[in-house]
Amino acid sequence: MPIANFLPFRRNGDTVFLAGQICEWNGAVAYHGKIGVDHDLATGVKAARICALNLLAVLREACDGSLDRVVACMRVGGFVNCAPDYENVPQVINGASDLFCELFGERGSHSRTAVGVATLPRGATVEVDAIFVVDCDRTSRGKAR
Amino acid sequence: MPIANFLPFRRNGDTVFLAGQICEWNGAVAYHGKIGVDHDLATGVKAARICALNLLAVLREACDGSLDRVVACMRVGGFVNCAPDYENVPQVINGASDLFCELFGERGSHSRTAVGVATLPRGATVEVDAIFVVDCDRTSRGKAR
Amino acid sequence: MPIANFLPFRRNGDTVFLAGQICEWNGAVAYHGKIGVDHDLATGVKAARICALNLLAVLREACDGSLDRVVACMRVGGFVNCAPDYENVPQVINGASDLFCELFGERGSHSRTAVGVATLPRGATVEVDAIFVVDCDRTSRGKAR
Repeated sequence: MPIANFLPFRRNGDTVFLAGQICEWNGAVAYHGKIGVDHDLATGVKAARICALNLLAVLREACDGSLDRVVACMRVGGFVNCAPDYENVPQVINGASDLFCELFGERGSHSRTAVGVATLPRGATVEVDAIFVVDCDRTSRGKAR
Repeated sequence: MPIANFLPFRRNGDTVFLAGQICEWNGAVAYHGKIGVDHDLATGVKAARICALNLLAVLREACDGSLDRVVACMRVGGFVNCAPDYENVPQVINGASDLFCELFGERGSHSRTAVGVATLPRGATVEVDAIFVVDCDRTSRGKAR
Repeated sequence: MPIANFLPFRRNGDTVFLAGQICEWNGAVAYHGKIGVDHDLATGVKAARICALNLLAVLREACDGSLDRVVACMRVGGFVNCAPDYENVPQVINGASDLFCELFGERGSHSRTAVGVATLPRGATVEVDAIFVVDCDRTSRGKAR
């Protein structure tokens, strides 16, 4: 049963808003707790990559199964559950950004905002959301009208 | 006198950006402090619902008085002022999401990102912002051009 | 060498997403640490203004050198690195909002969400991002298609 009442994505025209994904895999939180306390940077990068993989799964659904329809990644939002004195927030979120760039090349390059937060859903270590532009005139899933 | 220099909403075409609303009611902060320290989950849900009611008041204004013009809620951003070990952030923000879904049905279903933050304006317990799509060719309030 | 893999802006049609800018100046973090611990409100306002200046430099680039092409500031996101009991988050972010309003007049008025976070990239005191609408049919930099 979902713990929250929202959709994994919503689309208006060519713009897809992807809901924030935590570093969850097969139903379990893969990395729990704070970077700088419970985990190091390398683990944070892995956690961010898992968030990005989850976003890609939803994005594929938003594209009716074909990531070829991805035109651009407009924006990534990265949230790191970390100690109040942790400074390497951008390096953690690179775990997500690098995956988008590897996969989509120039189309995957994006603007980004990354911050360190007090806590995340289910105590997850990282959460990432994104806004994509897609070419999906032929699909209506999650479409606003 | 407002404490900050910004608008309650800004519109470009059919897209309305609603500024973040705290759990303020009749000029006073209804719930102050942190979930997991000063308040429990049930109070957090009430606080999130108040944020959503404030968003609806602004959205009505953005629709020239008629919420019938609401096409879709694209995205909700939820910020919970909470203890660093608090995990039920999504459940708190459901207080806002549920209201949008009750009121607008399928049109109210949205993507969402919810995080726990260190603090919020005026020490409020919850803050929520949103992006809506509206059918408002006939209105120009807050329009970009 | 950049610490993170992302673009300073990305544009789709008339909408420009500006990546989050910290209070960095000439390569150094101008204000480091937390408001309410290491710095007072006045310093926070200065830090937010620096973030806004950095955003303007990127926005100018997104407009092919001419800020006259700015149609509207749709949304500002403000993140304050602060103590968990700090309440004047909006007043800090006014340092950015006021600059946009001074420079662009009514075009610079925006919706906004401001929150207090656990930490920021490189330990910066403030980070601000923004979404602008621009009139730039003649430029293709950062364009989605």
